[in-house]
Amino acid sequence: MMTAFATGCRSVKFSRQIQDLRKYSQNAVDLKGMFPPIPTPFDEKEGTVAYDKLHQNFNKWNTKPFRGYTVMGSNGEYPFLSAFERVELVKNVRQMIPDGKLLVAGSGCESTIETIIMTEQMAKHGADVALVITPFYYKSGVTQSGLARHYEEVASNSPIPVLIYNVTVNTGLDLPIETILRLSNHKNIIGMKDSNGDIAKLTNVIFRTKSVPGGFQVLAGSASFLLPAFSVGCVGGVCALANMLGDEVCRVQDLFDNEKMEEAKLLQQRLVAPNIAVTKQFGVPGLKAALDAFGYYGGKTRLPLEDLSASSRSQMLKIFNNSGFFNQ
Amino acid sequence: MMTAFATGCRSVKFSRQIQDLRKYSQNAVDLKGMFPPIPTPFDEKEGTVAYDKLHQNFNKWNTKPFRGYTVMGSNGEYPFLSAFERVELVKNVRQMIPDGKLLVAGSGCESTIETIIMTEQMAKHGADVALVITPFYYKSGVTQSGLARHYEEVASNSPIPVLIYNVTVNTGLDLPIETILRLSNHKNIIGMKDSNGDIAKLTNVIFRTKSVPGGFQVLAGSASFLLPAFSVGCVGGVCALANMLGDEVCRVQDLFDNEKMEEAKLLQQRLVAPNIAVTKQFGVPGLKAALDAFGYYGGKTRLPLEDLSASSRSQMLKIFNNSGFFNQ
Amino acid sequence: MMTAFATGCRSVKFSRQIQDLRKYSQNAVDLKGMFPPIPTPFDEKEGTVAYDKLHQNFNKWNTKPFRGYTVMGSNGEYPFLSAFERVELVKNVRQMIPDGKLLVAGSGCESTIETIIMTEQMAKHGADVALVITPFYYKSGVTQSGLARHYEEVASNSPIPVLIYNVTVNTGLDLPIETILRLSNHKNIIGMKDSNGDIAKLTNVIFRTKSVPGGFQVLAGSASFLLPAFSVGCVGGVCALANMLGDEVCRVQDLFDNEKMEEAKLLQQRLVAPNIAVTKQFGVPGLKAALDAFGYYGGKTRLPLEDLSASSRSQMLKIFNNSGFFNQ
Amino acid sequence: MMTAFATGCRSVKFSRQIQDLRKYSQNAVDLKGMFPPIPTPFDEKEGTVAYDKLHQNFNKWNTKPFRGYTVMGSNGEYPFLSAFERVELVKNVRQMIPDGKLLVAGSGCESTIETIIMTEQMAKHGADVALVITPFYYKSGVTQSGLARHYEEVASNSPIPVLIYNVTVNTGLDLPIETILRLSNHKNIIGMKDSNGDIAKLTNVIFRTKSVPGGFQVLAGSASFLLPAFSVGCVGGVCALANMLGDEVCRVQDLFDNEKMEEAKLLQQRLVAPNIAVTKQFGVPGLKAALDAFGYYGGKTRLPLEDLSASSRSQMLKIFNNSGFFNQ
Repeated sequence: MMTAFATGCRSVKFSRQIQDLRKYSQNAVDLKGMFPPIPTPFDEKEGTVAYDKLHQNFNKWNTKPFRGYTVMGSNGEYPFLSAFERVELVKNVRQMIPDGKLLVAGSGCESTIETIIMTEQMAKHGADVALVITPFYYKSGVTQSGLARHYEEVASNSPIPVLIYNVTVNTGLDLPIETILRLSNHKNIIGMKDSNGDIAKLTNVIFRTKSVPGGFQVLAGSASFLLPAFSVGCVGGVCALANMLGDEVCRVQDLFDNEKMEEAKLLQQRLVAPNIAVTKQFGVPGLKAALDAFGYYGGKTRLPLEDLSASSRSQMLKIFNNSGFFNQ
Repeated sequence: MMTAFATGCRSVKFSRQIQDLRKYSQNAVDLKGMFPPIPTPFDEKEGTVAYDKLHQNFNKWNTKPFRGYTVMGSNGEYPFLSAFERVELVKNVRQMIPDGKLLVAGSGCESTIETIIMTEQMAKHGADVALVITPFYYKSGVTQSGLARHYEEVASNSPIPVLIYNVTVNTGLDLPIETILRLSNHKNIIGMKDSNGDIAKLTNVIFRTKSVPGGFQVLAGSASFLLPAFSVGCVGGVCALANMLGDEVCRVQDLFDNEKMEEAKLLQQRLVAPNIAVTKQFGVPGLKAALDAFGYYGGKTRLPLEDLSASSRSQMLKIFNNSGFFNQ
Repeated sequence: MMTAFATGCRSVKFSRQIQDLRKYSQNAVDLKGMFPPIPTPFDEKEGTVAYDKLHQNFNKWNTKPFRGYTVMGSNGEYPFLSAFERVELVKNVRQMIPDGKLLVAGSGCESTIETIIMTEQMAKHGADVALVITPFYYKSGVTQSGLARHYEEVASNSPIPVLIYNVTVNTGLDLPIETILRLSNHKNIIGMKDSNGDIAKLTNVIFRTKSVPGGFQVLAGSASFLLPAFSVGCVGGVCALANMLGDEVCRVQDLFDNEKMEEAKLLQQRLVAPNIAVTKQFGVPGLKAALDAFGYYGGKTRLPLEDLSASSRSQMLKIFNNSGFFNQ
Repeated sequence: MMTAFATGCRSVKFSRQIQDLRKYSQNAVDLKGMFPPIPTPFDEKEGTVAYDKLHQNFNKWNTKPFRGYTVMGSNGEYPFLSAFERVELVKNVRQMIPDGKLLVAGSGCESTIETIIMTEQMAKHGADVALVITPFYYKSGVTQSGLARHYEEVASNSPIPVLIYNVTVNTGLDLPIETILRLSNHKNIIGMKDSNGDIAKLTNVIFRTKSVPGGFQVLAGSASFLLPAFSVGCVGGVCALANMLGDEVCRVQDLFDNEKMEEAKLLQQRLVAPNIAVTKQFGVPGLKAALDAFGYYGGKTRLPLEDLSASSRSQMLKIFNNSGFFNQ
């Protein structure tokens, strides 16, 4: 029911335990594979979410060998949507994708209580996994104990498994390994998506969570270090570049699984510059411009993000071209 | 009307100009003085906003020589409240303070459209000035032009004057002087609250906005550098410490205005450590614990912030004691 | 004797105590006043130190109301000189300045042993005070205890008083207040030059070292926050801008001492932008170009610093002009 | 001759070209393999370099399948040695290692002129490759053009090939890819040692320098990301952990070369925590304590680095133990 939601969640109590969390044990969801982080298209005139365009995009994406999709992550401009819009988006996307594809939905808010409500709403409307960003406004003002309790409260109250989302470039925070290890023991926290590219840390997390019952799955949050991530034990990726180059990005994992390391290396080397272009170099505006160039609908961002200039657009496409991915 | 608000603001158009912004010219609001940033009290059991406790606190604060109040700033745990709760709080506080006191309300959101709606709602419910934080999730992904347009769109659509809120410790962003100068020319942007303590930058902003029609008023965002800020031309402050030590913090300005520099220096020296204690050292939990110790209602924070431990509480009160402010 | 010095200081023992440090008590040196940080001029052709040009500069500087001079600080390109050159420079400068002017010399090296030797050499050749930068290569690899012992060993072995040099923009380190307080108790450590501009921290250091026997003197390391620094109790400054605008920078202190706060404010406001121009904006190349423009000898820097471009030079002089300091 | 060296290098002219640099073309030196960064042992009593202990260590290291050694890097406490000591060390180590092993020597100083002299001295005394750290004191005060010219001047004047040394944790600087690409075109700059672990950047550097005549070789500066580095095309490593675990660290490369990816992964996973322990966690003191524990001579560091406490030592050895490397 939306009412309680829209009126500020007064009725939610902390520490309410989901009756039977055992059915949400880690074994239930195998994350091996690719989950492109879907940008949110907006109507050119009204600025509202353009579901028709999104549907067109999914018609193409659904032909790719993805394990599933991530919505309402950084690339989905989630901080620019109202609470209501975030839930609506999950509900609509669920209708656009086949049952076999996992729907990972970004449900993180700054407060624990808001995150619990958002996670519940998204689960109710079709999300399979909740992607929960580290709360970040108060930075070091939040203790590690506070961060851990945040995740534990959310996970204990969530009908669906929780994936930790660590993305320092946006949050200014890097979840320490000790806290990750603590959280890996919660049976409804099934893994972590890490966008930082600190490959040593990922390796160490994988090494030290080996004995966790049900396992702890680590997803590379970027195509920029995908092959290195596989080499140390990551199981999949959430890669912006896969929105345009779905087949190629998925192929890195195939090649690695088939021990074709030389081929994998050559492909990985080509992916880095285009991936950087649609992430830290040109950001979401770059990603949307690339979608447009590759036959998807990208369109405009919401302010304060600004659309890419014509010259930046050319520069970006040249980067794809230099890697042999865009020939016009 | 709440409906449009709660459903994600589909009906709001950008660049809608307020018919007659001239009545919101900078001259209209004189910010000289002190505006304590009010913490938001929560009910011990339900976690909802405890308006009764807030009312008790205002009964005391209203006896102090404040120019007004700031609500829904960092110390008000604004990121932890739902959109609805933020507006409700403004509406309620307006009833608790005399007409002569200015109500500055933090209305910033990540997207321009959400900020416009929030600002309008807060204005409608009694805010005199909108305090707008720099959007910060996308960090350098947002261009300076995008940031400037954000503020200009908000200010052009706001029924009340806008105050820029620059607080790098939380946002990871520092608004450059060039952007501030551009914004100072907008007639509905009347000044800036800066919490960074880069006193050279404040001095330069004041120097370079002298010729702006209607002026550009700079508020020190911390008692830690209040006297230095006055020495270079700041007109007032938004100081967490004023929640407990209202008379003392206001007295710094009195002493400065009356050219009692030696006395002002000695008082300022005593304020720094206690102010740091209730801000960057112990954060909002420290501020709330200090309120409790000084006869106000502080109470609990929302998770992921955690209440102060007993030992931290002692340590904090000792710091007040060392400055001669708390004798028990 | 240079031999031991040049051969790597094998003969120096740690913890050798200067026989009678009492004569170096803090009371001995009053730092109240201005100490411009002197740039090191280089010969256009050979790149060696141009002592003739330096002498010309001092002939002018010696007419200004400075308390003394700082050599071999950041503005003196000290990291670009060999150990031998650093000592030679001190020796030569001593001959160029009147007895009444204090010679503060940057003697810091990364290791304690090298710093002890350098300090001793500089003292032997005429330095009155040793300015010792925080060792910074190993960053957090050096413990606070290690940093404190570094300063204590240097001070205990130094024939002249030691001044702590805290300059985060270059070192990436900020000496914590606890370590400063510990060091303030050493009787041969007489104060600190702080270039960071964290005015709250300076205030707190001054407040908490009031009871130190002999006192602890804090110098503002930049003209950008000079008046604010005086307002909280700093005794003087080491200000790059004073190389060109000696009278004006000294006048800030005069005005403050005579309680002409309005006039002081107006002057301080004009100083900030030009000071930023010759420090963080255009660096040492900017400072040298400004010296040339103001009738001193600036000349070239050593590589990897590059001389200012013509357009940057114009931009910089325009900044001086905007503050009314350079009219051509 | 030491005289010119000790007297501040007045006689060195810039841009002096080595007569026949063609013999130092990139093809001449194949860096494939492991180069442990040797710590510098100090005499317990005198604090001087303990060459006898170093000789003992090399007797063991020389039995390992290393490609060569790195001296006077960060792990060698190079900033703590005098200029004279740095050269002496190179000269002595050359006598301790077989002809077939490459001697890579850290010759970087802050100024270009000092780096040229140091590089020449080290080459004269037996270094095969000069490892040149980015000058870092002036941080952004040094332009990219200045940095590039620094390396080009050093390389043009060096009798031996130059390896770029990028280590942000110590320098606070990260050499941008554009500058690296420019430098890769200099025929006496043969590659880069990168300690940052930004594996995406390394991949991109390798991809974009493929067509450089003679090639551009990238070495992983840490065992923490060794296998990932190999997976994207790095040719070798400079790994602190190899000082204790020479066989194991070398084996990662063997396994990778023989396409035993599963085995390589399991070994790499075990290496990360111990490697972090002897680098960023416990630093050089940790590395020296580990050497002692593994039957080498570690000994004391120079101040301001402090020896490891007994409890930190236990903690560190437990980390090795957890990875199965130290069983007592």
